[in-house]
Amino acid sequence: MRHDKSLPLGAKIGILGDGQLGRMLSQAASRLGFKVVVFGPDAESPAASVSALSKVARYTDLEALDKFAAQCDVVTFEFENIPVASLEHLIAGGARVAPNARALGITQDRVSEKSFARSVGIRTVDFHEVNSLDDLKAGVARLGVPSLLKTRREGYDGKGQVWIRDVADIDAAYASLGGRSAILEAKADFVREVSVIAARGFGGEVKTYPIGENHHVGGILSTTLAPAYVSESLRANAVEIATRVLEGLDYVGVLGVELFVLSDDSLLLNEIAPRVHNTGHWTQDGCLCDQFEQHIRAVAGWPLGDTEARFQVEMTNLLGPDVLAWESLSAEAGARLYVYGKDEPREGRKMGHINRIKGRV
Amino acid sequence: MRHDKSLPLGAKIGILGDGQLGRMLSQAASRLGFKVVVFGPDAESPAASVSALSKVARYTDLEALDKFAAQCDVVTFEFENIPVASLEHLIAGGARVAPNARALGITQDRVSEKSFARSVGIRTVDFHEVNSLDDLKAGVARLGVPSLLKTRREGYDGKGQVWIRDVADIDAAYASLGGRSAILEAKADFVREVSVIAARGFGGEVKTYPIGENHHVGGILSTTLAPAYVSESLRANAVEIATRVLEGLDYVGVLGVELFVLSDDSLLLNEIAPRVHNTGHWTQDGCLCDQFEQHIRAVAGWPLGDTEARFQVEMTNLLGPDVLAWESLSAEAGARLYVYGKDEPREGRKMGHINRIKGRV
Repeated sequence: MRHDKSLPLGAKIGILGDGQLGRMLSQAASRLGFKVVVFGPDAESPAASVSALSKVARYTDLEALDKFAAQCDVVTFEFENIPVASLEHLIAGGARVAPNARALGITQDRVSEKSFARSVGIRTVDFHEVNSLDDLKAGVARLGVPSLLKTRREGYDGKGQVWIRDVADIDAAYASLGGRSAILEAKADFVREVSVIAARGFGGEVKTYPIGENHHVGGILSTTLAPAYVSESLRANAVEIATRVLEGLDYVGVLGVELFVLSDDSLLLNEIAPRVHNTGHWTQDGCLCDQFEQHIRAVAGWPLGDTEARFQVEMTNLLGPDVLAWESLSAEAGARLYVYGKDEPREGRKMGHINRIKGRV
Repeated sequence: MRHDKSLPLGAKIGILGDGQLGRMLSQAASRLGFKVVVFGPDAESPAASVSALSKVARYTDLEALDKFAAQCDVVTFEFENIPVASLEHLIAGGARVAPNARALGITQDRVSEKSFARSVGIRTVDFHEVNSLDDLKAGVARLGVPSLLKTRREGYDGKGQVWIRDVADIDAAYASLGGRSAILEAKADFVREVSVIAARGFGGEVKTYPIGENHHVGGILSTTLAPAYVSESLRANAVEIATRVLEGLDYVGVLGVELFVLSDDSLLLNEIAPRVHNTGHWTQDGCLCDQFEQHIRAVAGWPLGDTEARFQVEMTNLLGPDVLAWESLSAEAGARLYVYGKDEPREGRKMGHINRIKGRV
């Protein structure tokens, strides 16, 4: 089904952001015959080094953004902290941009993200908006301890977060914000963390991948096992949540929805990532159309691809020095290694991942 | 198993040749964290557009080759018509080059290729060296008609070949050579065409992929089905042939061996391609380690990867305007589309391919 939005072979896809997600998006786009232009701050980035063209500039450099957009048939992003104003500037200038700026804006802010989720009937942890020390005190009084204080914006992999375990922690926790507005979240009594990677095309069609179960270590994703062992009702519930998010945001592209599984098997939304997601890397070896190709298909107006799982895969992140074990990792049978081409294996830095085939589905 | 030849993460791999094979080699190298430098005549080539660096020059430009080699930790090639002198120049300058220059030289020349094969106990069609009209007449007298006159060097996809169906064709056939030296080949009475893709590492380890059955149309590969339905003895025979070729050439990297299957299930060597091969594209979706990654592993001194087939795949080349059907091709379930990023879909030009999953293995 062609529609007006279908980009032809050889069209140029612009990617805002130059990390490993941009790298894998670029490779998927090339495989489909598109040319890729990467926009980001680093000339020798993981994404720029596998792309036809790159524009090295800051995300707030409107002149550079205009030149970039002039080269592209569609602009997308791999990084959720692109300034919304930059995206709006591109759109005002006539660029085709997907996902849309509203979706980016909502998911950049933890309060608006949860408020949006609730507005479309998705349960979230209880939360309290924090703009002052008094707000925080009121929040702790309402939500109890332990509760989790997070900056409203930015912060990932556990950064910008602090647990309040006692009322006595409040002042120090508030001070740690350095004046940034924040959100206080009730502790979710979850037994597992799962995620669903889902895509929506320009025509409104939705496809979801099988559910992944995620394990974090020190706030950073360590492994995803997918398809996870989940009940049919959990699966259906997760798909329903993802669909409501996609439709509520009028989203075009791939996103990741992180969910907490409670002891009664019900789900709470944890976070929406308006981009391809680390918990979707397993699709590279579990499915014929991985999340990266799926995103490119969606933003290019191509038909969405096959999301059926062919294998159960365990994805393990290679953080910091983990990647230095490439000799043994590359010698494993039944596994596929991905290295992002970053120079310094700093502690906690995502340097690559390995997908291990656990079995047939 | 590390050995002296193992390149570290982030090492630079130079590829001579900038077509679709270089493109897919480059993508595989990037996936393993290597940086790729492409050397070829075209700035916007399929390979250069997905690679970190490129050098635009002719393969005979020794100065450009020296600059290229200075950037690379290993140099390999995707194109069998790189001048052997250029490879020898790089080696003399201290570059690490794989496969070696002798392997390239032998396989560039149809007479030396067949003579080599025979020297290591591999059967080939009967042939006659043609350096003059008298040679050709003697050859036709010896081999009979029909017989196939080919230039000794270059020519692929049926180019540079002419069938001699009658003694009366001899003069015209000879004239068509334009003075190039040639080989006259007896007609092989084959019932099927198969190929084996095989790899050899620096340490001498050999791995082979399952056998593919190939169908050509108009001298150009149309489809490969792999793993093919072949007897165990045929499979073992093909593996033995590939191993003799790899060892006889002291080869490091991936090569393709095209074989004719005779009515008694025995095999005749048709051609050796000293590079990744179109009949190995099915491995991208049939195996965890495809031929491109395997070649990169071999030349980088990494352990060879898993060649077990997980799926039976039918690879179909998209020649010329075939690729314009991308809308329906990309909408197929159970298939994966590869487009090479070439601009003009000229008749017979390899523009992409599609791998269709036929079933589990």
